[in-house]
Amino acid sequence: MPEPNEPSAALLLKAILRVLDEGSIAALATLTNARKNVGTKILVAESGDAVGSFGDVALDRVVAKRTPGFLESRDEAHLFHVRDFAPELTEWAEASILFERLEPEPRLVICGAGHVGAALARLASLTGYKATLIDDRPDFVVRDRFPDGRIELIAAQNWSDAVREAIGSGRGVSVAVVTRGHNEDEECLRAVIATDADYVGLIGSKRRTNMVLDRLREAGADVEKLRKVHAPIGLDIGAVTPEEVALAILSEMVADRRGGTGGSLSSWRRESELGKGKQVR
Amino acid sequence: MPEPNEPSAALLLKAILRVLDEGSIAALATLTNARKNVGTKILVAESGDAVGSFGDVALDRVVAKRTPGFLESRDEAHLFHVRDFAPELTEWAEASILFERLEPEPRLVICGAGHVGAALARLASLTGYKATLIDDRPDFVVRDRFPDGRIELIAAQNWSDAVREAIGSGRGVSVAVVTRGHNEDEECLRAVIATDADYVGLIGSKRRTNMVLDRLREAGADVEKLRKVHAPIGLDIGAVTPEEVALAILSEMVADRRGGTGGSLSSWRRESELGKGKQVR
Repeated sequence: MPEPNEPSAALLLKAILRVLDEGSIAALATLTNARKNVGTKILVAESGDAVGSFGDVALDRVVAKRTPGFLESRDEAHLFHVRDFAPELTEWAEASILFERLEPEPRLVICGAGHVGAALARLASLTGYKATLIDDRPDFVVRDRFPDGRIELIAAQNWSDAVREAIGSGRGVSVAVVTRGHNEDEECLRAVIATDADYVGLIGSKRRTNMVLDRLREAGADVEKLRKVHAPIGLDIGAVTPEEVALAILSEMVADRRGGTGGSLSSWRRESELGKGKQVR
Repeated sequence: MPEPNEPSAALLLKAILRVLDEGSIAALATLTNARKNVGTKILVAESGDAVGSFGDVALDRVVAKRTPGFLESRDEAHLFHVRDFAPELTEWAEASILFERLEPEPRLVICGAGHVGAALARLASLTGYKATLIDDRPDFVVRDRFPDGRIELIAAQNWSDAVREAIGSGRGVSVAVVTRGHNEDEECLRAVIATDADYVGLIGSKRRTNMVLDRLREAGADVEKLRKVHAPIGLDIGAVTPEEVALAILSEMVADRRGGTGGSLSSWRRESELGKGKQVR
């Protein structure tokens, strides 16, 4: 068994930490079932840029090229035979590469700790999000209300500053604007729009959210970013209670992040039964 | 102020308890702003059958007739002016009736306490469901794993009996079949199909769920009920982790109960902006 190459291992570890810290996505590829260099790894960013080596430049290159395809799939991990994606590398015909997705914990910033915001923080934390809950009423963001220590609580002196600081680079961050009032919602959305958050949603009726978006547009906010705001926020699940509204919001965020459509997974069954009798597999 | 009519009040209270106990839906209508009998109530079932009286048979009758329309709306409570729905009752022109929805806590029976079932029980409990979690592996349904005491835990000797008993009349009950294996899923679904549960969902791929449904059909299961099974279970939110799968399932259950479509509430915005420039309000 080859000794791990210490300088390379340190380089790789640093690169992994950088990926997680930046909130970007990458794949860690590990050589398995090979006649040599089993366990060597390379880290490949979404762009295809790689750190590390299997000890064969040609193999490094084909694995880096294969990575974006793996990252586009929803798999957390997948074992590929080298012969299936690089038959020309006859030396590695029997070898396999384990691809593993590296992805930071998704983050959720919630502006407003009322009934909907509070329920959203609790559901999101259970679903694997690192939730940050902001309110300008200090007694709404006390630990007593949120025994789950994974939920970060922020009492804002000023909505704009608190929101911008919580969102940071915005990479991997979803934002829900669900404060107690329209003015606060507008103030928060103005601050959120100035960031690069992945997902932004605003609570309210069609009419009310239109008013807010129109006003921000007139004040010179980025039109492209305004267009991407999910308003009214959430999936249409007929939500009535605050907890159901929170569920609708979280489902839309996951669908946005993972690339789902929101419809029923079983709709094909009814469609195919109602439809032209086409074969369903 | 009139004294409450004791025998009527007792009758009404019993009727309310019966409604909640049966898991059916009803409206409680209370007379307000009237010149007499303020605070008198009638309880009206979905069918329009009423218990109690406002002290005026004509008023009792029109309120009972108005109730199904209120129950079809999603409102929890609504105040109606009598003159708006019964202008012929001039004596009550200025009176109002407060309609309040009475509805039992929705129930969720989960067959299988693996990763998805466990996450589903926790999310559902937070969202206002009374969840029952069943497994035939006793150490999967211990209180240590589920500190939330609102989640009912059942170690099944036998899936069929446990499932049938937990579902009961099926009124107001959603069922998720998410066991550890295909054979267990099939055994559970066979028992579930024999009940009158409001919502039934089965986990698995299209191909696998087709096989199970075909086999039950061949064994003589009710075709109409098989058609209503949500399979694969859940909304298409691109769920990857067990917690996200649980979120997709719960969202579909709420959408089914409340009458939502599953799509994004904000889709009208993109459609109208992409579309024919039609006016959006």
